[in-house]
Amino acid sequence: MRSVKIYSPATVANLVCGFDVLGMCLNEPNDIMEVKLLEEKKVTIKSKDGYNLPADPAQNTAGAPLLAMLEELKEPAGFEVTIEKHIKPGSGIGSSAASAAGSVVAANHLLGNIFSKEDLVRFAMFGEKVASGVKHADNITPCIYGGITLIRSIFPLDIVSIPAPRLYVTVVHPQIEVRTSDARQILRKEVLLKDAIRQWGNIAGLVAGFIKQDYELIGRSLEDVIIEPVRSILIPGFDEVKKSCKEAGALGGGISGSGPSIFMLSKDEATANEVGKIMQDIYAKIGLPHHVYVTTVNNEGVRIIKN
Amino acid sequence: MRSVKIYSPATVANLVCGFDVLGMCLNEPNDIMEVKLLEEKKVTIKSKDGYNLPADPAQNTAGAPLLAMLEELKEPAGFEVTIEKHIKPGSGIGSSAASAAGSVVAANHLLGNIFSKEDLVRFAMFGEKVASGVKHADNITPCIYGGITLIRSIFPLDIVSIPAPRLYVTVVHPQIEVRTSDARQILRKEVLLKDAIRQWGNIAGLVAGFIKQDYELIGRSLEDVIIEPVRSILIPGFDEVKKSCKEAGALGGGISGSGPSIFMLSKDEATANEVGKIMQDIYAKIGLPHHVYVTTVNNEGVRIIKN
Repeated sequence: MRSVKIYSPATVANLVCGFDVLGMCLNEPNDIMEVKLLEEKKVTIKSKDGYNLPADPAQNTAGAPLLAMLEELKEPAGFEVTIEKHIKPGSGIGSSAASAAGSVVAANHLLGNIFSKEDLVRFAMFGEKVASGVKHADNITPCIYGGITLIRSIFPLDIVSIPAPRLYVTVVHPQIEVRTSDARQILRKEVLLKDAIRQWGNIAGLVAGFIKQDYELIGRSLEDVIIEPVRSILIPGFDEVKKSCKEAGALGGGISGSGPSIFMLSKDEATANEVGKIMQDIYAKIGLPHHVYVTTVNNEGVRIIKN
Repeated sequence: MRSVKIYSPATVANLVCGFDVLGMCLNEPNDIMEVKLLEEKKVTIKSKDGYNLPADPAQNTAGAPLLAMLEELKEPAGFEVTIEKHIKPGSGIGSSAASAAGSVVAANHLLGNIFSKEDLVRFAMFGEKVASGVKHADNITPCIYGGITLIRSIFPLDIVSIPAPRLYVTVVHPQIEVRTSDARQILRKEVLLKDAIRQWGNIAGLVAGFIKQDYELIGRSLEDVIIEPVRSILIPGFDEVKKSCKEAGALGGGISGSGPSIFMLSKDEATANEVGKIMQDIYAKIGLPHHVYVTTVNNEGVRIIKN
């Protein structure tokens, strides 16, 4: 029976001023998944970790995308998926996307890469629908494509890879629960035009900063006048983390996805490590369990580690 | 008495999805201005064209920026400005910006370039304030810097040059009056978050398309779901112009600034000329006096033609 083992990485969605359209792939942490090709049309999910995720494939973020993929296959085939999750569900660094993207990349590999990356994004969005009720692609896309990605449009799907200079990423996950659906509900349905203008000036600056490799411009553009002021209230210590990390030399950063994780970008490793220490100190002082990752941008996305 | 003669070019503000932040400099049409350095602190304005623009420097779009500049000069100096306007006021292709930017670039040249380009933008904004009541910089900046520019932030001023591939620009000016202040007033103060998200996906795509020299992406990103649906109502023939020009191969386009001019971008000269013919046919059919320019992006901005 043919099988494949993969690393499926964590991702940071939104990137401060790019709510719902920008995302970035990280080198750490990673889920490990093993997918076996079956001869009959079915999907089974096995879990090797302690998380209590649904075993019913239609309700599982790795299973639903595979069911969508099987619908478009002519020959009878199926998949058995074993998940070893290291990206905590609810952390805001793309745990559900890692399951959804990992399963479709692995399955496509076993089928001889008959589907395009865009097809895989389309399938994987069914996993996000199961996880949060919304078919968003801002974690899935960087997870499948690697690097920094823009979803210019979701219907029809229009994906743009954004080249960027070397960036270090420090992420802190303060272990409180922020549900994606709650984080979405507290947003206003209308925003001031003047705020929207400031936001699109910032996202234009951020994209230009990435492609032109202008670190200063990247830093100045990491400003969010619409989502962050509302959502950051749900994250204890947010303002202090952001202020102290920027004072220590981080280019900037903000809420990862819908939180509670916070990410900061740095130009060099020493700063990224220093930023990590600051985050640890702040949450130790608050008395909140937390985990810090110091990593880099992953330009490859989901990676096959064993055929 | 030292003097200088300059070309000051037309500009297209907004670039469809970049309302208030993006602008582009054109090679045609141009105003011609002559500026003389005086030994006393005063500004005089002379007009060599038929337009009835204010002779009081404080009320004139070329005069107000020079008065602002003189405030920051230690030594006594002044300027006599002679304007030969070819960019029709109210056309929506930066007529007031050409006066404001041209006068400060010329004056700075006579003073030995003591002010930075950013200073010049700051002074020239006083001209826009006189013209429309608002200190906007989306025409002035490309007029001074050349090429395509992003104003990431206006307070504090943050200007980013956006490199772009060779682009042909076709502009039609249907001769109806759309006042900038009216075009601003019909906009809603609040917009739907979902529309703002679509808009910032588009501006991110447009900036990426320019820098990556991806013409298809530029074309797909030239979409405005917020301003155009409201303002285009003021411009007869708008929908037909846009649809027909895109069918003829234009990448895309829309309202230039606050209108009534409409611009279209093309990859090659033949398409740009064909687009110009289509525009002419449509306004001939409607029976509206109009003028068409077929030109390219001007990467230099205001140009000294005689010392």
